[in-house]
Amino acid sequence: MLNELFTPSVQHALDIVGIFVFAISGALLAVRKNFDVFGIAVLAEVTALGGGIFRDVIIGAIPPAAFTDLGYFVTPLIAAALVFFLHPHVERIQVGVNVFDAAGLGLFCVSGTIKAYEYGLGLTSSAALGLATAVGGGVLRDVLANEVPSLLRWDRDLYAVPAIVGAVMVVLCIRFDALGAYTSGAAAITAFVLRLLAMRFHWRAPRAYNRRSATAEETSAVI
Amino acid sequence: MLNELFTPSVQHALDIVGIFVFAISGALLAVRKNFDVFGIAVLAEVTALGGGIFRDVIIGAIPPAAFTDLGYFVTPLIAAALVFFLHPHVERIQVGVNVFDAAGLGLFCVSGTIKAYEYGLGLTSSAALGLATAVGGGVLRDVLANEVPSLLRWDRDLYAVPAIVGAVMVVLCIRFDALGAYTSGAAAITAFVLRLLAMRFHWRAPRAYNRRSATAEETSAVI
Amino acid sequence: MLNELFTPSVQHALDIVGIFVFAISGALLAVRKNFDVFGIAVLAEVTALGGGIFRDVIIGAIPPAAFTDLGYFVTPLIAAALVFFLHPHVERIQVGVNVFDAAGLGLFCVSGTIKAYEYGLGLTSSAALGLATAVGGGVLRDVLANEVPSLLRWDRDLYAVPAIVGAVMVVLCIRFDALGAYTSGAAAITAFVLRLLAMRFHWRAPRAYNRRSATAEETSAVI
Repeated sequence: MLNELFTPSVQHALDIVGIFVFAISGALLAVRKNFDVFGIAVLAEVTALGGGIFRDVIIGAIPPAAFTDLGYFVTPLIAAALVFFLHPHVERIQVGVNVFDAAGLGLFCVSGTIKAYEYGLGLTSSAALGLATAVGGGVLRDVLANEVPSLLRWDRDLYAVPAIVGAVMVVLCIRFDALGAYTSGAAAITAFVLRLLAMRFHWRAPRAYNRRSATAEETSAVI
Repeated sequence: MLNELFTPSVQHALDIVGIFVFAISGALLAVRKNFDVFGIAVLAEVTALGGGIFRDVIIGAIPPAAFTDLGYFVTPLIAAALVFFLHPHVERIQVGVNVFDAAGLGLFCVSGTIKAYEYGLGLTSSAALGLATAVGGGVLRDVLANEVPSLLRWDRDLYAVPAIVGAVMVVLCIRFDALGAYTSGAAAITAFVLRLLAMRFHWRAPRAYNRRSATAEETSAVI
Repeated sequence: MLNELFTPSVQHALDIVGIFVFAISGALLAVRKNFDVFGIAVLAEVTALGGGIFRDVIIGAIPPAAFTDLGYFVTPLIAAALVFFLHPHVERIQVGVNVFDAAGLGLFCVSGTIKAYEYGLGLTSSAALGLATAVGGGVLRDVLANEVPSLLRWDRDLYAVPAIVGAVMVVLCIRFDALGAYTSGAAAITAFVLRLLAMRFHWRAPRAYNRRSATAEETSAVI
């Protein structure tokens, strides 16, 4: 039943969209870091495919889908070429890129969770791998660019939480035997909208209690 | 015979302890790097489970134990929560954390070596994977925090050597058919004590010969 | 037929040479970063074996060759010891090291592509994995040393392109049923010579168009 959630061609098209927008974010960071054209292509590939490759290695889906589907491999190269030639325009539409990136986040946390469950993992592990699928490429991107992963930084809008919510919705649906095209679509859309809201209202996650208050004290010199 | 070294429940309890203390060290670094609560949780998970996941992927134990045993996944989250709410207290008991971390090092280098051998690797490779199990999580922790891995730095007390000694003791026991609860326990305790001594007496490993003397010359201006 | 390209012993000897020269480059970077003797050994191992381990995990060749062949494991340790005791001499012969590193690049992009194809990957994926085999160790080396991978930087001579050319030559030979000792040797030598030429004439890859012109404008103040 699980693999009938979407028709294969719809699922594939959604995957390609997610891969494309993640690749754009990788290529843009590469331009900002002043990498050459090959660095741009490598960072686009790693950002787009890294999370899925990690998931497939963990669940034993060997070789990973990224190496068996030519579209998965070529899409990041197209994204890299677009950024290479048009990047001021791409940056100007950064809002659009962010929206697509949020869509990729929603799609990947759902499809990653489902694939992990199909390969026999437990519900908690499936949700964890869904999260890893959604955010893993971005973490690899930042590590290769020699930056602290923006996933971990407190001064970035919430990124993990929307993916966690989406993945947890999927495993709850699986648990209560309610996973279908509508419910998994709802999970993806919830993650997508939460991410958009987090960006719109600059939602941040708290830091460790005493550290935060210590910083507050420094600036206020009260208490 | 190998899997009778410890009763499964004892082995599992030791694993959980090792995972817990490694997670504490990851969470503390995350606080020091000013990560938010999700960054703390991620770094705790990666530090605690990274070495074991790497070992399991290499030996083909798919999915890795970290994704099949709920306790392995939840323990780092508990450690992260403790650090999040109590981290000045946790830092105050840094000595205690270091002792537990040394215990985790001893346990993981032994259990990692044994598991690799059980999966058919040679003696040298098993010892190498035992070392990787023990130190891999810490290396991943430092890479994600965008720091030079403390494993590699010359100005840190010996960390790899105790794990190497423990792993080599295990493969020697295997080679001479003497591996049992006592001998593997002795290997773990030896690694544990060596690490404690290295911290107590600030044992360092040498750097490359000419670099070291060049630095000495700069400060002393004498041969 | 594919596995008759070279006699096994010749293939093995070429692998060992490639591993050795990559290990030298890792150990030299470790000395430059002031790592201790264990850091030097770890960076030598990771640089020499990282690309091949990644390829083997992806194609499901478990355990990776690096963990089944003792020579693969010991060779980097010998390279690390040489650098540890002799590194000014090794640095003095940096030209020689660069030539050997280029040879390793040529050998690994060819052997990596062939091994991936033998494990059932498509032509494009095989070439991509051949490239990853050749450059993966160097990327891991730079990540562990907390530097931007030199593969990605625009101010380094072309490194990926020679490996891409070699890997593409191999898959073209496979496609047209012309892979043999001579043609795969020609691919390795082409990659090798291209890399030597790139170093000799400082060939660089272009950066994103507008970024490049913007930088030019800054210095010339002319359109």
